[in-house]
Amino acid sequence: MADSDKTNTQRRQFLKFSGMLMGGAAVSGLSQPLLAKTQLSPTFTPPSADNPIRINFNENPLGMSPKAQAVAKETIAISNRYPMKEMFELRKQLADQYSMPETAVILTLGATEGIRVVIEALAAANVQLVAPELTFSAAEDYARSNGMKITRVPMTKTWDIDLAAMKKAVADYKGPSVVYLVNPNNPTGAICKAAEVEAWINSKPANTLFMMDEAYAEFADDPNFRSVAPLLKAGADNVILLKTFSKLFAMAGMRVGYAVATPALIAKLQPKIGDNLLNYCGIKAAMVSLKDEAFIKYSRASNDTSRKILLQALNALNISYVPSNTNFIFHKLNVPLKEYQEHMKQAGILVGRAFPPADDYCRVSLGTPEEMTYVAKVMLEFGKKGWI
Amino acid sequence: MADSDKTNTQRRQFLKFSGMLMGGAAVSGLSQPLLAKTQLSPTFTPPSADNPIRINFNENPLGMSPKAQAVAKETIAISNRYPMKEMFELRKQLADQYSMPETAVILTLGATEGIRVVIEALAAANVQLVAPELTFSAAEDYARSNGMKITRVPMTKTWDIDLAAMKKAVADYKGPSVVYLVNPNNPTGAICKAAEVEAWINSKPANTLFMMDEAYAEFADDPNFRSVAPLLKAGADNVILLKTFSKLFAMAGMRVGYAVATPALIAKLQPKIGDNLLNYCGIKAAMVSLKDEAFIKYSRASNDTSRKILLQALNALNISYVPSNTNFIFHKLNVPLKEYQEHMKQAGILVGRAFPPADDYCRVSLGTPEEMTYVAKVMLEFGKKGWI
Repeated sequence: MADSDKTNTQRRQFLKFSGMLMGGAAVSGLSQPLLAKTQLSPTFTPPSADNPIRINFNENPLGMSPKAQAVAKETIAISNRYPMKEMFELRKQLADQYSMPETAVILTLGATEGIRVVIEALAAANVQLVAPELTFSAAEDYARSNGMKITRVPMTKTWDIDLAAMKKAVADYKGPSVVYLVNPNNPTGAICKAAEVEAWINSKPANTLFMMDEAYAEFADDPNFRSVAPLLKAGADNVILLKTFSKLFAMAGMRVGYAVATPALIAKLQPKIGDNLLNYCGIKAAMVSLKDEAFIKYSRASNDTSRKILLQALNALNISYVPSNTNFIFHKLNVPLKEYQEHMKQAGILVGRAFPPADDYCRVSLGTPEEMTYVAKVMLEFGKKGWI
Repeated sequence: MADSDKTNTQRRQFLKFSGMLMGGAAVSGLSQPLLAKTQLSPTFTPPSADNPIRINFNENPLGMSPKAQAVAKETIAISNRYPMKEMFELRKQLADQYSMPETAVILTLGATEGIRVVIEALAAANVQLVAPELTFSAAEDYARSNGMKITRVPMTKTWDIDLAAMKKAVADYKGPSVVYLVNPNNPTGAICKAAEVEAWINSKPANTLFMMDEAYAEFADDPNFRSVAPLLKAGADNVILLKTFSKLFAMAGMRVGYAVATPALIAKLQPKIGDNLLNYCGIKAAMVSLKDEAFIKYSRASNDTSRKILLQALNALNISYVPSNTNFIFHKLNVPLKEYQEHMKQAGILVGRAFPPADDYCRVSLGTPEEMTYVAKVMLEFGKKGWI
């Protein structure tokens, strides 16, 4: 599909979906079994090796908000300029959203640069990183290259983060600790309960900083999930919140994210970025995306629909999975992952990589509802063949 | 001016200029005094407070190559994806250009991230950064925040880099040294002579790494300038070359650059970036820009014309300047910089900031030839008023 066709398709889908939302028929509220009801449209192009269904990198399949795409396109003509003023404008917009001072926010390249600068700012030979065994790997990678001690905490039997064991790892250690929590977690999709997280943070363990990565938070629908943003607003000085525009806002390729913490903590991170800037298009797209309520609603509802479609297939196949609060589902396999990946690839579908030690699980990101309808049908066929 | 108008104007200017180049009337070869010959076109919009002539940040006024703009626009529709494959493609393209292996290249956010990762990879309390007193400040900033010793070497009386004094600073120091050379230098525009630079590098001073920032190299026309690229190709293991797409390619807002060195050195830099990516539009625009010979010719010729226009004005005013091998000119002032900046601002022109210790100099970036014709006229008026 040519890219201009892609834009048009994205816009059409968005308008159709917006109309449904406005009309009250929110897709997430449909009571009929979705899998039976959702039909592939006549224009749906089955995937191929050249144009696969990409559900391997937790990308948002919708494309950026049409308004964000429009402003990004306009910005290309002025991308010979450095976006200094615009960096401050985006920071101000974010600070206002969190009801925090501007000095409590720093812009980063996705959440990944947030992880880098936190680790670099706090690293020392006597500092330990405490991280779940199964989580986004960047924190551990940066900690290792910065000579930190790394304490990996095994998961529970249900692939939840073992908060009690993490607490113990902090309490047992003599030096300072950086606790890394991705909430909801990647690659499992599971949440840590807000009550437990907040109690731990509020207990203010000595020499401990909580690096809270909420990349997927907007997709969470478990009422036990809460962002740490209210703690920050209340003045918590032992938390750094990391966010990205890659997921809800479908801006993975634009590389925009940010960190929120006390101005004193943010001031420690700043020298690790220096005067370097984000890209002009990304900054402008982020400013527009934050205000695009219709797209935010669409993005969440579409993900919710896709999740329901995939869960129906997994339930029909009697395959277990970790309850998902994200834009992906971590499901069990009865066959080796490599075989499953290969069969999926032959069907034009790219699924997630191996995530040891969960070797008999696969992470499947959520594509569009139509893509997931196709994937679900493929999964049901795989079920008959004993390929899943 | 609306941004779509901006694109159209950029395209028109490019086509006009390309036509002139093809026709053999290369602007850089005009023999008549340019200032007298170059007229403001009837469509030229005089600058205003809202739409000033921006010659304060060494940006390329032309806008990106039309081909690069087109591909960047197309890429927005797929910027919900991570550009992993494309990172490798751009790296391969650059490696081929330098006749080096792919592992000898690492992509960075402009040259600035190159500086960051070199400093971070090599920093230790006993390592000194040796840098000219008057140069791009990022190296010193990162060195300071990483606890390195900083040795600032005063400039010569003509604002040249004092290579002999830099050599002495390295020779006199017991620990390892990182030598930072911006060549041609910013904010002066002066070159270090290739023969001297190469002799120093080839002498392989013990424990010394040369961080060579060639952000402006394509604008150099002094035959004594040479890139260190041939040294790298010949296997030099004590040099890291830093490059950016911000200047020649007018991509400042896209944040794309790279470093070239031995694979062993690049492998040391890699963990300081980790798995983080550049933005999709920037990567695609860079790949196209590298191959756009017409734009490269246009960009150089336009800068050359603008430089000639500004030099004629400075000569007419009998104002001295550092010979420029860049897209800016560092010229002397007979009035305080603040007054000059303010008068220029009132005329709709934004000029460079203070660069101590050269307190009686101003750095003026080169706009389009038309903009520089306007700036030159303003300067001549300032001359009559004693404002320059």
